[in-house]
Amino acid sequence: MAKKYLSNSDIKLAVIGGDVRQLWLARALAEDGYEVAVCGAGGDVGGEDILGGAVRCISARDALHLCDAVILPLPYTTDGRRVSCPLGGDILLSDIFGGVPVGTLILAGRVDEAAREMAKGAGLVIEDYYDREDVCVENAIPTAEGAAAVAISELPVTLHGSNVAVLGFGRVGRAVANLLKGFGANVTVAARRDDDLAWIKLYGYKPLHFSRIMELCSGYDVIFNSVPARVLGDVWLKNFASSSPSWKLIIDLASKPGGVDPDAAKAYGIKLIRALSLPGRVAPATSGMILRTGIVNILKEHGIYAEGKGGSTP
Amino acid sequence: MAKKYLSNSDIKLAVIGGDVRQLWLARALAEDGYEVAVCGAGGDVGGEDILGGAVRCISARDALHLCDAVILPLPYTTDGRRVSCPLGGDILLSDIFGGVPVGTLILAGRVDEAAREMAKGAGLVIEDYYDREDVCVENAIPTAEGAAAVAISELPVTLHGSNVAVLGFGRVGRAVANLLKGFGANVTVAARRDDDLAWIKLYGYKPLHFSRIMELCSGYDVIFNSVPARVLGDVWLKNFASSSPSWKLIIDLASKPGGVDPDAAKAYGIKLIRALSLPGRVAPATSGMILRTGIVNILKEHGIYAEGKGGSTP
Amino acid sequence: MAKKYLSNSDIKLAVIGGDVRQLWLARALAEDGYEVAVCGAGGDVGGEDILGGAVRCISARDALHLCDAVILPLPYTTDGRRVSCPLGGDILLSDIFGGVPVGTLILAGRVDEAAREMAKGAGLVIEDYYDREDVCVENAIPTAEGAAAVAISELPVTLHGSNVAVLGFGRVGRAVANLLKGFGANVTVAARRDDDLAWIKLYGYKPLHFSRIMELCSGYDVIFNSVPARVLGDVWLKNFASSSPSWKLIIDLASKPGGVDPDAAKAYGIKLIRALSLPGRVAPATSGMILRTGIVNILKEHGIYAEGKGGSTP
Amino acid sequence: MAKKYLSNSDIKLAVIGGDVRQLWLARALAEDGYEVAVCGAGGDVGGEDILGGAVRCISARDALHLCDAVILPLPYTTDGRRVSCPLGGDILLSDIFGGVPVGTLILAGRVDEAAREMAKGAGLVIEDYYDREDVCVENAIPTAEGAAAVAISELPVTLHGSNVAVLGFGRVGRAVANLLKGFGANVTVAARRDDDLAWIKLYGYKPLHFSRIMELCSGYDVIFNSVPARVLGDVWLKNFASSSPSWKLIIDLASKPGGVDPDAAKAYGIKLIRALSLPGRVAPATSGMILRTGIVNILKEHGIYAEGKGGSTP
Repeated sequence: MAKKYLSNSDIKLAVIGGDVRQLWLARALAEDGYEVAVCGAGGDVGGEDILGGAVRCISARDALHLCDAVILPLPYTTDGRRVSCPLGGDILLSDIFGGVPVGTLILAGRVDEAAREMAKGAGLVIEDYYDREDVCVENAIPTAEGAAAVAISELPVTLHGSNVAVLGFGRVGRAVANLLKGFGANVTVAARRDDDLAWIKLYGYKPLHFSRIMELCSGYDVIFNSVPARVLGDVWLKNFASSSPSWKLIIDLASKPGGVDPDAAKAYGIKLIRALSLPGRVAPATSGMILRTGIVNILKEHGIYAEGKGGSTP
Repeated sequence: MAKKYLSNSDIKLAVIGGDVRQLWLARALAEDGYEVAVCGAGGDVGGEDILGGAVRCISARDALHLCDAVILPLPYTTDGRRVSCPLGGDILLSDIFGGVPVGTLILAGRVDEAAREMAKGAGLVIEDYYDREDVCVENAIPTAEGAAAVAISELPVTLHGSNVAVLGFGRVGRAVANLLKGFGANVTVAARRDDDLAWIKLYGYKPLHFSRIMELCSGYDVIFNSVPARVLGDVWLKNFASSSPSWKLIIDLASKPGGVDPDAAKAYGIKLIRALSLPGRVAPATSGMILRTGIVNILKEHGIYAEGKGGSTP
Repeated sequence: MAKKYLSNSDIKLAVIGGDVRQLWLARALAEDGYEVAVCGAGGDVGGEDILGGAVRCISARDALHLCDAVILPLPYTTDGRRVSCPLGGDILLSDIFGGVPVGTLILAGRVDEAAREMAKGAGLVIEDYYDREDVCVENAIPTAEGAAAVAISELPVTLHGSNVAVLGFGRVGRAVANLLKGFGANVTVAARRDDDLAWIKLYGYKPLHFSRIMELCSGYDVIFNSVPARVLGDVWLKNFASSSPSWKLIIDLASKPGGVDPDAAKAYGIKLIRALSLPGRVAPATSGMILRTGIVNILKEHGIYAEGKGGSTP
Repeated sequence: MAKKYLSNSDIKLAVIGGDVRQLWLARALAEDGYEVAVCGAGGDVGGEDILGGAVRCISARDALHLCDAVILPLPYTTDGRRVSCPLGGDILLSDIFGGVPVGTLILAGRVDEAAREMAKGAGLVIEDYYDREDVCVENAIPTAEGAAAVAISELPVTLHGSNVAVLGFGRVGRAVANLLKGFGANVTVAARRDDDLAWIKLYGYKPLHFSRIMELCSGYDVIFNSVPARVLGDVWLKNFASSSPSWKLIIDLASKPGGVDPDAAKAYGIKLIRALSLPGRVAPATSGMILRTGIVNILKEHGIYAEGKGGSTP
């Protein structure tokens, strides 16, 4: 069953829709030697600037024709009907899922139940390139840089020498704490697990158990939240509003509900910045290259790679 | 001759004009215990937010009355006639220099020949609080943070893992290189002196003698210039435009002429960002506190301090 | 069943045997307010220097009498019959296990099946304070410092600017890589998992997949191994011996079999340093304090703590 | 007058005496392409191991014959009569100074008045390769690593998390502070100048003015002195002995008189380690390469280099 590829140039990839990250992704894949076609990515000069000569911009019909894998954007849709095409383009999901041969591999970001149903119905294989630990870890870096840029712009003091707290020590929490230490900030990290607290200490931050989170109400110039749950409740916010420096800044990096109730923050005069989707915004080229890593790993796992060539670097 | 002060509260300081940094400065001095009066700083809510209750906002006439020292802004004037009052206010320099008793100490930023003449004519002592090594070194930190924020916003890649070059290893060059290393960038620093090159190596950057500056034309994601002279000429820019990554970014932090001819950069399609006066813009509170350090040191040098108290830490 | 303690001073702990770490542990527990008695720790001046006045040195019989918990050393025995007492002392394990009331809590390091049998037979509860993630993570720090000291002493070049490789990215691998970066070394870390490789990149090291380990044979000044398995085989060693700098240094931090066959290393003229049990050797006081953390957490889990007091910080 | 060299191999250098650093120096120069002869460096296997095949070991008479420059060790003598030859060898200074043609360039370490007299008397040019800012800065790195190794071995606690003070912010002070921060220590640096204090803050250490040096008497795990003057007097030592942790450790890196009176330290029970000449001891290969940098720069300044070749990078 496994097709044999002599070189990456025998492998045809259709990159459909998406924002500027998708253009960088297409370029990175072309630089890896794949034959890449793009559609639903507008036709603007900027895009061509990024894509260079190695990537063809073609119609969806042509792109799907005989391709070895289809790459949908991140997220693959926003309305459930069409491929997300913020740069311009109008492509129905049904045209994609119905337009490729049975057995074709579909790679997409934020795959949900609906996508799985469509893929199943059409006899296609679908994989989420955003649901991988390596991609998530790498994305923590542009997230941290974006968070730092927000803090620089919102704080009247320098990060150097300031007292900052990071809530959570997962991927984003670690990357943020590491970068803030590079700024020369005094970094406190709140976590729950004993081993996380030991790591926090090892990396030179001040560890704080979540049960003592009230201690962050005073003396901190900014709080970065990375926990996707309401960790800062009404009592905490009230105390923070009365005891912290006058700029009262919280930067919430957590998706889903976020760590703070926006209405409560507003009521107490706290400046709450919800900074989401930072990687695509602050570093689209790096983001495209990060997606590339995940996608190339999935292609390999499905045998869509040229043996003796692939040798991708970590 | 030296007046004896029992406590800082016996010392009256008039803070005249200036931008939001001046408000933070006034607040910091008030927190040190000085009696501080502000005028020519608008009357807006923001200002009062910063100043709190310890600083009085009064008329220039009252402010000058019996004060122990007058603090003019940075820069003290922009038109040579009036005190610089960007927050609102219309105060003639002549009213200040003519309104205080002979012998009064005037502290001002960017003191020029004209100011020295005025002070001399009125029998006043004038000192520049911005022309001090300690103030300049401390200002390098907000400058570096502002430069990093510009780079994050302009580059499509993360600073982490990118190749960056810093031209010059003075105060700003050192602070920028140090911060970029904290981001995990690969930092090359160009300098001329053998001992600077040895320090560059000691701090973990790649040293490059200025004579080999053409080597920076390719492979660098961004160039930060801190040398106040035209260090990047036409040949360099032409090569950079053709060999560097497509974003072609130069961030020029140098005052005076700057390191790059803007017209040449434009002609070659290079994105040149001149990022000046960053401290006041990105960290007004820290900037005010930095000015405070210099001002307090000058006051001490002139005997305007309370013995047994002063002991402020750097 | 749970006894109620009003303060830590109501809690009696018997610290039996052990090396100098045990003395620091006893002191740390005494400083926490516990009533601590020590026996089987020699009677030398050094010990008393460390212990100060808060810890009593008494006989085993007295120590066991009415104590709330017994703390055996790390490792608790070396011959299976007696408590390990390198500082002097001759105490039979059977005297301990038979000398305390049924239900007493025994804390020991490196608890094995034999110890569990003895405890079970005597109706005692036994816990291993060394088999905890928090203790292991914290121990990685003195291990890394000891490893650095070995490298400084064995290498004819500075760690600054040298090329070093770390095999494995567990607790010790992470701590060693982090410290070597602090020295300004160029750090490569070899690991197997995609997410580990992403973390390695995030922290600023060069990631290398274990499958490409032959690339470490040339150009590296020293290899630190933290993987407890024979990761460097005969072919690798032969290549390393012929291609690496003349000092050919490997520092093996892994317990159990170690990462390198000592005979093969010797045959190829490679300098192999097996650096084991570093925490107790390079930082006995810190080690004692690390054990304290684990022990206090176990005591709490068993209800042996004074409510409203304990609140020790991580 | 200036001789013209087509390549480095036309340039003959005689390396006389010295310790193992001198062997590494000879090897580095040979690797640069110079023709290098060594004498007075023993005949031991270790030496040949280092030197490899490119360096000839010959008699002093032959070495001096027609060489373009003579390189004496660091220090060039210890008794004023003979070249310092700790590896074996007995060479009179008078044989060297009398054995080379008038006008020959002599490079030596720690050149004193006597050496200048001898050179002048013989019509030779003498230069000190150790009295150069670049060499001194680079030597600060092995000094710092050696100091860290001493601290690791002497302290019962880890440097990570410990409180350390560095006296002086010259070359050695800066390198030591930088490295200790890499260990995760809490670093205080004592200095006198306002701008040094500002730099100390910028690099993330706690600045302390020397006038407040009594504050270092308690709470510090180790004091590193880099100031070549008696900065820690009797009162300070007495207080330190009574208030600091029980290990009472001072590591004195300053030459000449040192910062501490050894007898006073002993009287108060303070552990004073005088750690001198660390570069040659902890990193002889790096030290040899550092000397090479200074020597090559001197050779260039005297026209002893091959044009179009030399261009060695710092």
